[in-house]
Amino acid sequence: MADYRFIRACFRQKVDRTPIWIMRQAGRYMPEYRAVREKTEFLELCKTPELAAKVTLQPIDKLNVDAAILFSDILTLPEAMGIDLKFGKGMGPQLSPVIRSRSDIDRLKEIDPESSLSFVMQTIRILRRELEGRVPLIGFSGAPFTLATYMVEGGSSKDFLNLKTMMYKNPKTAHALFAKLSDAVTAYLNAQIAAGAQAVQIFDTWAGICSPIDFDAFVFPYVKSVVDRLNRNGVPVIYYCNGGSTLLSRMRKLNTDVIGVDWRIEIDVAWKEIGYDRAIQGNLDPCVLFMDRKGIEERVRDILKRAGGRPGHIFNLGHGVLPTTPVENVQALVEIVHELSREDRA
Amino acid sequence: MADYRFIRACFRQKVDRTPIWIMRQAGRYMPEYRAVREKTEFLELCKTPELAAKVTLQPIDKLNVDAAILFSDILTLPEAMGIDLKFGKGMGPQLSPVIRSRSDIDRLKEIDPESSLSFVMQTIRILRRELEGRVPLIGFSGAPFTLATYMVEGGSSKDFLNLKTMMYKNPKTAHALFAKLSDAVTAYLNAQIAAGAQAVQIFDTWAGICSPIDFDAFVFPYVKSVVDRLNRNGVPVIYYCNGGSTLLSRMRKLNTDVIGVDWRIEIDVAWKEIGYDRAIQGNLDPCVLFMDRKGIEERVRDILKRAGGRPGHIFNLGHGVLPTTPVENVQALVEIVHELSREDRA
Repeated sequence: MADYRFIRACFRQKVDRTPIWIMRQAGRYMPEYRAVREKTEFLELCKTPELAAKVTLQPIDKLNVDAAILFSDILTLPEAMGIDLKFGKGMGPQLSPVIRSRSDIDRLKEIDPESSLSFVMQTIRILRRELEGRVPLIGFSGAPFTLATYMVEGGSSKDFLNLKTMMYKNPKTAHALFAKLSDAVTAYLNAQIAAGAQAVQIFDTWAGICSPIDFDAFVFPYVKSVVDRLNRNGVPVIYYCNGGSTLLSRMRKLNTDVIGVDWRIEIDVAWKEIGYDRAIQGNLDPCVLFMDRKGIEERVRDILKRAGGRPGHIFNLGHGVLPTTPVENVQALVEIVHELSREDRA
Repeated sequence: MADYRFIRACFRQKVDRTPIWIMRQAGRYMPEYRAVREKTEFLELCKTPELAAKVTLQPIDKLNVDAAILFSDILTLPEAMGIDLKFGKGMGPQLSPVIRSRSDIDRLKEIDPESSLSFVMQTIRILRRELEGRVPLIGFSGAPFTLATYMVEGGSSKDFLNLKTMMYKNPKTAHALFAKLSDAVTAYLNAQIAAGAQAVQIFDTWAGICSPIDFDAFVFPYVKSVVDRLNRNGVPVIYYCNGGSTLLSRMRKLNTDVIGVDWRIEIDVAWKEIGYDRAIQGNLDPCVLFMDRKGIEERVRDILKRAGGRPGHIFNLGHGVLPTTPVENVQALVEIVHELSREDRA
């Protein structure tokens, strides 16, 4: 693999400056993205490789980030398993039928990514060609637990009571669902790697609602099972869990190359907890991008100082960039991270 | 003050068994509460002292909990400051006008709790009479930051961008708002204490969305200012912050008697971080109350074991009881906590 700054940092190798990419870097905050979306529904965009590749590339040119991330949605995987998926105007995703019983789970299809998710593989192939080696391409999937929240609740949730009730009253059913999702996520990510993804991120957006005891029983084993079965061969694996600050010592045992953390914890405290034999990704509060340049610079400086110039820091937000973020502030962020971290290393 | 188990535990004195009360113990999960609500809108209920006292007492008889908590809503305080408050059917609270500028803040009224919140004081007086010393009465208020989220956002929020933007772009405005709220919360809680509240809890439901740097600048000083100005004189003070596991060492410096924690952290880990010279309240996942009795017992046993029989543990959920919780499971929880903790101490 070419000598990419981002990939080197994932493996804790020395870099000339701290690499940065931004969760949801292809998205609504960019006028170029909105122009595409004016003519195309969200899911149609995900499923049209030429367009998905196009919006993936928009932030590469505009922001100078150090990695591209496949434009897609974590819920295309449940859809490929036979769940109907809709994104209503101004509403979150709606999935039906909801998964509640063992027979609901048995009806879920095993995926063959090259057929039912061929649009993703095709997008990756186009991107590898069009990126021409400028920056590496990150593939991704939702984690089993996070996918299950949507499939059991039928969409977003506040307290995730249906899934937790399944875990508590019918643990065998819950384990069967997580196991099936773990197989699907493994197949999906390995197909992305085969198609050309040069790194993969596992998004566990909702695992942070679990108590440590539930994380140990219902989250950890299924992420571990994915990670252990990935064709990693030079492809770094990132696990990102929102709101997971109390679970970091557990996440360490997943043996991913990188752990992504949100902004609710100081990055030095998090890294110490995770251990310096793992790379860390994060962790600016997305709302900081509504500050002026001076304010953004102060916060970036604090994070870089806490990361201590140690090899293995990938700069990112602690969660996805917000749709109303001024694009020039996102550009400023990338510039600031590059400038300040280059100075640090000089 | 009478020798209450709950009050003793707040001050880390020995008790015969671990006291328990439950956040939102007067609420929708109880048929008796629903019967009252069928005839009375939520806000009208809060503002009718006889009815508010009645629903406060319902869980005392039914559950055998060790404390009563005033039935009210944290948003009656902003309303007393001149904000219009509505609870739409199936929607969260709606507040108007939203607070965005210095002049919006200047227009907020200073409260005189005995006049603009007289219904709360009256409820407390009725309750002290009707409780006849059976259990102590907890008063409460929202914390300045959490109240500000509702006042600036106009209701609940996902990313709290308006408040954070105010903090980041117009910090002086945000500080003025927090300071004004800090004065109002202090006056409100001191009036509750004067009216007969025997303990007070400060709810900081949303402070957990803050990075540590923001907590230090915008949350901590204003809670501290409340706590420092309370007429504590034998009245224990509890600070509860949802999702605040990364902030515990900071919360310690608030000098409250008790810190309430959610279920995302093991209570032994939390207590060690807080320090054993503070009492701790928590921390069962509310969803566990959907398990059967055996399951609930297992989880309670784990928490009690982690708390180690040390004086100063008050059992509670990590967040409010959910509206669809089976009432017999809440009863079972109280029984189990009392039984197991009495055995531990025998």
